[in-house]
This record gives sequence, structure tokens and C-alpha cells, in this order.
Amino acid sequence: MDIKCFDVERLKILCADIRSRIIEVVSHNGGHLSSNMGAVELIVAMHYVFDVQKDPFIFDVSHQSYAHKLLTDRWDQFDTLRKIDGISGYTKPSESTYDYFVAGHSSTSISLAVGAAKAIALRDEKDRVPVALIGDGAISAGMAYEALNELGDRKYPVVIILNDNEMSISKPIGAISKYLSQAMAGQFYQKFKSRVERVLDFLPEPATYMAKRFEEGFKLITPGMLFEELGLEYIGPVDGHNLPALISALKTAQKLKKPVIVHAQTIKGKGYMKAEGQFEKWHGVAPFDIESGEPVLTKTLNKSATTLFSEALFELAKEHKNVVGVTAAMPSGTGMDRLIKEFPDRFWDVAIAEQHAVTSMCAMAKEGFKPFVAIYSTFLQRAYDQIIHDACLMNLDVAFAIDRAGIVGEDGETHQGVFDISYLNAIPNITLFAPRDDIGMKYAVEFAYNHKGVCAFRYPRGNFISCKRVKSKPFLLGQGEILHKGKSDIAFIGYGNGVGKACKCAKFSDEDITIVDLKFIKPLDEKLLKKTALACKRWYIFSDSAKRGGVGEILLGFLSEQKIYDVVLESFEYEDNFIPHGNSVDIEDKLEVSINKIVKKIMKLKP
Amino acid sequence: MDIKCFDVERLKILCADIRSRIIEVVSHNGGHLSSNMGAVELIVAMHYVFDVQKDPFIFDVSHQSYAHKLLTDRWDQFDTLRKIDGISGYTKPSESTYDYFVAGHSSTSISLAVGAAKAIALRDEKDRVPVALIGDGAISAGMAYEALNELGDRKYPVVIILNDNEMSISKPIGAISKYLSQAMAGQFYQKFKSRVERVLDFLPEPATYMAKRFEEGFKLITPGMLFEELGLEYIGPVDGHNLPALISALKTAQKLKKPVIVHAQTIKGKGYMKAEGQFEKWHGVAPFDIESGEPVLTKTLNKSATTLFSEALFELAKEHKNVVGVTAAMPSGTGMDRLIKEFPDRFWDVAIAEQHAVTSMCAMAKEGFKPFVAIYSTFLQRAYDQIIHDACLMNLDVAFAIDRAGIVGEDGETHQGVFDISYLNAIPNITLFAPRDDIGMKYAVEFAYNHKGVCAFRYPRGNFISCKRVKSKPFLLGQGEILHKGKSDIAFIGYGNGVGKACKCAKFSDEDITIVDLKFIKPLDEKLLKKTALACKRWYIFSDSAKRGGVGEILLGFLSEQKIYDVVLESFEYEDNFIPHGNSVDIEDKLEVSINKIVKKIMKLKP
Repeated sequence: MDIKCFDVERLKILCADIRSRIIEVVSHNGGHLSSNMGAVELIVAMHYVFDVQKDPFIFDVSHQSYAHKLLTDRWDQFDTLRKIDGISGYTKPSESTYDYFVAGHSSTSISLAVGAAKAIALRDEKDRVPVALIGDGAISAGMAYEALNELGDRKYPVVIILNDNEMSISKPIGAISKYLSQAMAGQFYQKFKSRVERVLDFLPEPATYMAKRFEEGFKLITPGMLFEELGLEYIGPVDGHNLPALISALKTAQKLKKPVIVHAQTIKGKGYMKAEGQFEKWHGVAPFDIESGEPVLTKTLNKSATTLFSEALFELAKEHKNVVGVTAAMPSGTGMDRLIKEFPDRFWDVAIAEQHAVTSMCAMAKEGFKPFVAIYSTFLQRAYDQIIHDACLMNLDVAFAIDRAGIVGEDGETHQGVFDISYLNAIPNITLFAPRDDIGMKYAVEFAYNHKGVCAFRYPRGNFISCKRVKSKPFLLGQGEILHKGKSDIAFIGYGNGVGKACKCAKFSDEDITIVDLKFIKPLDEKLLKKTALACKRWYIFSDSAKRGGVGEILLGFLSEQKIYDVVLESFEYEDNFIPHGNSVDIEDKLEVSINKIVKKIMKLKP
Repeated sequence: MDIKCFDVERLKILCADIRSRIIEVVSHNGGHLSSNMGAVELIVAMHYVFDVQKDPFIFDVSHQSYAHKLLTDRWDQFDTLRKIDGISGYTKPSESTYDYFVAGHSSTSISLAVGAAKAIALRDEKDRVPVALIGDGAISAGMAYEALNELGDRKYPVVIILNDNEMSISKPIGAISKYLSQAMAGQFYQKFKSRVERVLDFLPEPATYMAKRFEEGFKLITPGMLFEELGLEYIGPVDGHNLPALISALKTAQKLKKPVIVHAQTIKGKGYMKAEGQFEKWHGVAPFDIESGEPVLTKTLNKSATTLFSEALFELAKEHKNVVGVTAAMPSGTGMDRLIKEFPDRFWDVAIAEQHAVTSMCAMAKEGFKPFVAIYSTFLQRAYDQIIHDACLMNLDVAFAIDRAGIVGEDGETHQGVFDISYLNAIPNITLFAPRDDIGMKYAVEFAYNHKGVCAFRYPRGNFISCKRVKSKPFLLGQGEILHKGKSDIAFIGYGNGVGKACKCAKFSDEDITIVDLKFIKPLDEKLLKKTALACKRWYIFSDSAKRGGVGEILLGFLSEQKIYDVVLESFEYEDNFIPHGNSVDIEDKLEVSINKIVKKIMKLKP
């Protein structure tokens, strides 16, 4: 949509239309609401001032990019938001050439802008400038700082729009957030002014003129100071819902030919009363009724794995004072919100800072506390080095609660939690285990508490696929469990949420299949596996993880080491591709690892 | 050593003694020289003011901790520095209870201090305070910022000694470094002063008194400003070689009961003329002659893998203008120094910022350039998420040159490059390959240049183990090479530097062994492997990588998928333990994977 010829009034109408469309579709499909509602004017102003045909438009995390999608030929298709084969909830170059980059993890935008700026400089493309839109939450991650550190030094022309809604996903955390709020509220400026005024007291009359001059001098060095010290120009604060002000600020930034931060203040959820001024609740939402703001889906009766984790940890924390824990900007997503609320001196949200989250908890473990680090599988990738270097090398009593393991559904590629087994299994000193059902989660948290050394347990988004055969028992280090001893030579071997799937698949088979819950993949239950290998020569592996380096390959390694050569193994883990967005069931079906598809496969495989 | 009763003169003598001991031992054993020489007074003052028995002493990277080791019961054993079973070059709690934490990777200290401070606060231990010693290079990493962001907000008492030698490992890079230098040189202060002076021009006479007052007012807001804005107290700059000044500053910091930065200026190499004021050269050194400063070991005639990489990339960059590249604070370690010097607008050192290094290069790839990202295997762990989320998901033409793959020797646990195969292999869209010898490196760089998509090639520290059987040929995607077709049913299958080892081991065998160079482990050469499986039923795997998720398990996965059940495989990769420091040959012997030990094992295995 070419909006460059629009006048302000028409732009305002456009903003209203965009908001209606977002509410309409998100209320049906679910998605990120408040961040998108808050960023409408910012994105419209970006498109008005810059040229999406040539300037790299870089959306940090990109969950706020709906307005951009609507402005770039996706108005009609927007109905399919987050549905299988439909519009992604994030920017995605394979969906549109107007989407510069994939983003789903936070704080990559400034690095991308620096890279693009280097390319632009090398080719001397004077008419292009990268424009990054980043929230005040995302700027708390170390990666953003690393990029600012280079940018401020080399001074490539880059426009960074800082979308300061004081809200990121949850409440703003950290010194940077506080600094920004102070700057906004003028407290920072006031502090300096008072220092000056002490000096002004000594001035002879008439000092009025002088005083005014001083204030002007000081204004130069106030809210943008932090960025100016890092070598960036600063424009702001600007009202992020005031189109003329935004356009003017962006035009100034565009002309500077320097790295510049445009500091815009916005209200999350702007334009939808129910969401305005709400913190985490309206960040990512399920389908809802526009009128009442209530979710339209009848809630499942079962508690999610996250809720079960949160409850179990809460009970543990009540009982044991040495239990502490951390989340990296996902308090309600990980269920840590309740713990932070009840035990504010023992549980922390450290902002989008997975690296710091892990290593700071390692020091607590060294001091004798028992930290639970609750991070999504996909985001834990950010702390991989810290898990190796600070947790495992030190062999500390740290427990990693890996939420959103497996396919996460509508968030898609960037959020799938499928690599954790592969990347963690290679690390010495770590114990890996997983609960298979609701009661197993309680036992998992208990086991983690008592375990000496680093351990990590994974669990899915939403509910466990229940396996009603046998009630979960407490975890014992390295001990798996045979849930059913069948008469055939087939064993279904499951791990975590894969166990329920194995049970369901077994029901559809005529064979009397042995069902094993590994419970641990590191260390493995050698005795149980050897026994299983004696009885069953055909093993099928069930786990919601990548095949490469996954449970199947771990077991192949075991069989090889044990010199067991007569067992044939097939794994129903995920093949070596990034997994797209969509309803989890549909996606598993597409990947041919849904219960239906697996049953069909096994039927066909039958000799 | 209890130095609390020492007077300043005695402390000075102690510092001189420590320096002598460091030079003596490092000139024999090699090690980190300049950072340790520069930090002597800082560490002596730390021990004088704080109590190592109770205060957590946290050394960032800890390559500067020699003085600490000498002060804590390791004076005599210091002879064994970096030797097998001897004193580690880094802090190591298993070596001494005075070593609070393992460190070898940079920028973890502030996170550790925050964690320790949380524990101290919870237990209300009023007499303990964490003291972190961090260099100006280490503070450029995102992790340090994440920790400062929480610390400045929550305000736990923590003393951070910023060792500002303007030198980190290589030249200081980034806005933070520039900011610090400006603060030191007074430029920053000057800038503000000039703003004030413009105002002062308007002052009526006599303004002398006024002007003085202004200067004082402004001093309050100068060099420490950046940290103050982040919510930290600031003391400094202090001369880091002036003991009374340091002691006084640290005592003030100790009393504050707030987070505080003590900004100390030091000279790297201080006290050893040859090293003073030198940048990278004296950072990590091989044994040298104290008098002349020249290395004592006769240099090997062969070029290191790093040099070969650097030369090959240089040739490529000369020919192709789209070749660009990055190092994260290891310009000479990775051989990128030459490229940065010759092509300063195409090759960059982005400071200790692996995350930003990777993602910024991804944007360059998107813009049509061909980036080479040269990072040590162990440090690449810091950018794991960026490799997945920004490189592989986008399927961009980025080449990762993974230096220091395998056992690195004297640096030990924290630096071993053994996990990269396991953690990279799980990622879709990545191509993994490795040269086996000098000429192979040239071909690897060429292949990487021409390859469409993400690729990564690994190579060892120092020289390749040469395999003189067959000269390397250019790489062709997914094609391995049979170096020798033997008559026995044994195949030695090597990858990268493992190929040379396989060749050497084969020489000691009576059997006519088939030797395969995989060249690629992703994608595998299915045809070649199937052929090999037909001829050889016993496979031995040679690769300097972790067994878990390593080459052996990858091949087991292949055999299983191909339903090849009659091949027996044994891998001589590393078992599931962290690998200690020491001469690489000794260490491999200890791990039972030296050529000798493998030959013995194979002889024993012979049917």
C-alpha cells in the first residue's frame, strides 16, 4: 500500500482500520494483541517516512509486525494468521519480500541493522538506511548491547525506533527500563537540574536569564544521555501515537546519516479498551470475544504442564527455604509469576537475559541454594554456553525446567522446542529426564530438588498426552519404567510427552506391544534397556524432539556400546527441517508423526 | 598468605615478588603474561581489603588470576602451571577452595556476583560482599550488560573492579571502550565543560569563583556517569598500580553497601619491559627467554591450521569483493588480524560479542555478501541461538570457520572445542565439513565461499596430523573420499583432524585397513558409506569431538536409517567428561585416545 501521498487525516483513518483488522483477526485466531495495537502509528510512520522497497525494515521479535503485514499486500490473507500454511505471526521473508528477516527471538534487530548498514556502506548506497523497531523489553538483552557497542563506535547510519511502552511482555525489569521511565517522567532531568540549582544559588541577580540558559544547556544532556554516551544520537521522547510528531522525528533521524535512537512512548493495547494499560494478560492471547474480552474457547479441564510445574514448585518452595528460581521475562509463560509474587526475595524475573539468568543462579547454587531455572526450550539456546561453562563444568545443583518442549503450534519455526535434547545431551555432568503426565510433573520437581548436580527436565506446551495405563511413580536416578510388558517383539519406547503418544498408538495396534517410559535419557537405564532388548527386537521411539541427536540416536549409541546388534530401531522424532506454524495437531499430521500417521506407518511396517 | 598486617612497603615488595614468580614460571610454561602482570596490585589490594575466606572473589575469564593463586597457597606448585595434573591457568574450585568459580569464557563475573549477592541477602550475611574483577574487554559482552541491568535495578552490594587497561586481548573495540578512554583522557569531561563554558560566557565579572564551582559540579557527573545512569555507584579513575590509592578506593567501595564500580587504570605487562604497552603479542605466550623476550621453542616448520585458514581467506578476499568476515575479539587467534589490516572495511573485530558477530554477518549475507565468521569452537557456544535463529532458519550463505576444534591443550576444560559437532548437527539447513590437512584447508575455504546456505568447517589448534597417503582434493557437497581401499573388513573412518590420526594408527596395524575421509558429516556421503558397509563390517571412528552426538552416533543413525545391520562401529571420540588441561598429546594419552593407546586397543580387539 503506497501511503506516502496520504495526509495526516487519512493516515489516522488507516491506523483505525488497521486496528480494527487486527482485533478482528486476533479475536478469531489468537495472537499478539497489545504489542500490535501499540505499534500501529509507529509502523505507519515508518512506512510513510522510509521506503520499504529499499530500506531494511527490521522488526525486533517481530510479534508487533501485524500493521506492517497489513500494509504490505497481506490485508486479505490476514484471516489466515497463525494457521497452518497461513500468515505467520512473525516476519518471514519466505512469506513476503517486504519481510527483511526472520525474528521470533528477541533483541536481534540492532545486530541485523548493523550488518545491513555495513553492506550499505560497502556498496555506498546513499539512499538506503536500516530502520529497526525494538521494544524497551528487548533492549535489556545482552545481544542488543553488543550491537549498540559496535554501532556507537563505528557510527553507521541506522535508525532505531525504541518503542518504549514500559511493559515489554511483563512488567519492565532492570536498570535500563528504570532509566527510561525516569527519563520519561523527567526525574532524571530533575536530578541534574537540582545539582545545577545548587550552583545557581551563588549567582548574582539578575539570574533569571542565566537560569534559563542553564536549563537549556542541561536539556541537551538529559534523557538521551545514556545513548549519547554510547555514541548514538538521540531524538525524543516522542508520543508514539501522535503521527505528525512521529513523522517529524523519523524524518529528522533519516537526515542525520548517523546512528540515532528515536525514543517513542506508546501504550500497549492502544485502541482496544480491554487491553489498554494491561500488563502481561493481553500480550499473547487465545481467541476472544471482542465485546467482553473473554476467551471464546471453553477451557480444557486439565491443567497445563506449566501450571502443574508452577504448583509443584510452589509447594516445594513453601517447604524448603533454599529453593530459589528465575525466569527470563516469561513470568506467566513459565508459571513463575506465582512464585515471584509469593516469594519475591527468592524468585526473580531478570528480563530478557537468559545468559545472566543461568549464570547468576549458578552462583546461588554454589552458595548452597537450589535454583530452578524455568526457560522455554527455544530460548534456552541463548544460554547454551552458560549451561556448559557455569553450570555443568562446576557440577552444581541447578535444575533447568524446560518449558515448551516439542512443537509449540502457532508461534512456529522460531519457537519450536525441538533441539534441547540434542544440545544438552552432549554436555558432561548433566542429568536429563522428563515427566510423562500430570502427576509425573510433581515427581519431576521433587526429583530435581533432591538431585545432586545439574539436571534438566522438559515438558510440553499445554497438556500432556495422557497415558492412563500406569500412574506415574517418583523418579529414581537413571531408572526407567516398563508400563506394559507385551507378548510381541515390539517395544514402544517413549520419553516425556512421547510416552502418552506411544500409549495411544499402541491402542490401535493388534499386537501386544511393550511400552517403556525411559524417564531418563541421561543416564540411561541400562538394565531395563538390556532387558527390553532381550524381549523385543523392534523398537519404536516416541519423543517430541529432533531426530538428529535425539532419543533414537542416543539409544542407537547405547545399543552399539552394549554390543547389542539384533535390535532394529525406528524413531518418530522430527526430521531435519524447521517446523512451520499452525495448530500442533495439524502440524504433527503434516510431519507424519501424528498418532494417526504413526499408527498407519506401523501397520504398514508389520511383517 | 595473610597480608592484612603488611604495610605498604611490604606489599610493594610482595608485588615485585609475585611479578618475578609469574615471569619465571610463564617463561618456562607459557601462559597469560601481560594480563597477569597488569593485575598484580589490583589482586594484592583485593586480598588486603577483602577477606578471601568469606568474600566471593570472582575473576572474570580468570586468565589474570595468577597473583591470586600465588597468594592462596600455590606459590610452590606454581611451577606446574598449565601442565597435566598441575595448576590450571584459570580459577578452579577443585584446585583450591579459594577459587570461587570456574572461568575461562569472558564476562560471567557480574552475573556470578549478582547470584552470590542474592544468596548473601537471603541469608542476611552482612559481613560478606562479592568482589568481581573484570577487564574493559570483558565488559563489552552482552552478558555483562544483562547482569549490570539487574544489579543497577536491585542494588545488591557488589564491588566490581573494572580493570581498564585499554587493551583487553587485542585493541579495544566498541563504544564502551571508547567511552572509558575518553573518560580517562578527560575528553568526555572536556566536552561537557565546553558546553558549560558557553554558558559561562554570559556571566558577569567576577566569574572566577563561579567557574570553579561549575567545574566541581560537573566533575560529579563525568566519567562514572554511564554506570551511574545504570544505577551503580562509581569510584575512579584510580591508578591501578598505586597500592595506597587502590586500597583506599576499595575500602570506600566496601563500606558503601551498594553496587559500585571501582574504575582502575592499569598497564598490561606492567613490570616486564618487553611486554609493557604491547597489545596482543604478550597476552597468551609460549615459553620465552626472559632476557630477549624471544620464544625458546624452535618453531615448527608447518603452518598452523589457523595460518592456513588466514592465508586462504586472504587470497579469496583479494579475488572476491563480496567476501567479508568477523572475529569476536580474537583477531590474531583466528588469523583474522591480517584480513582486518588489509581490508578494514570488510573485516571486523566486534569485541567479545559472539552473538552480535553472528547475527550482524547474517544481515550481510542477506545483502548478498559472503561472510566468514571465525570463532573458536568453545566460544561459538555463545552464539548457538543466533546460528539457529538468524543463520539457519534464514538459510543464508554464511560460513563458520570453527577454530580450536578438538583438544586445545594447556587452556583446559573451559576451552576444549569438543561439542560443536553435537550442537550443530541438530540444526536444519547447515552443512558440516572439515579439512584433513594443509591443502584441504584451502579447498575448505573455497568450498565455503561457493556453498549456498549455511556451512561450518572445523580445524584444530596448531597443526593438522598429516596423512600423507593421498593429497587432499577439492570439496564437493556431501562427497567423502576413500583414501585407501584395504583388503580386510576393517574401515578407519575419519573426520577432519581425525583422518590423520586414522592414517597413523593404520600404519601400526598388520591388517590392510580401508581408510575413509568423511569430509562431510552433514550431508553424509550415503553412496560411499553404503559401499564401505558392503566391504567393511568393522568401523572405527576417528574425530576429535565428543562421542555424544558426535561422528560415531551420526553414523549409527545413518546405518539404522539405511537398515544396515551388519556393521559394528566403535568410536574413538571423547567420552562424556570435561577434558582437563595439559599438553594435548599427554591429555589424549590420559583419555586413551592417543595414537598409541588406540593402536593397542585395536590390537586387543582383533578377533
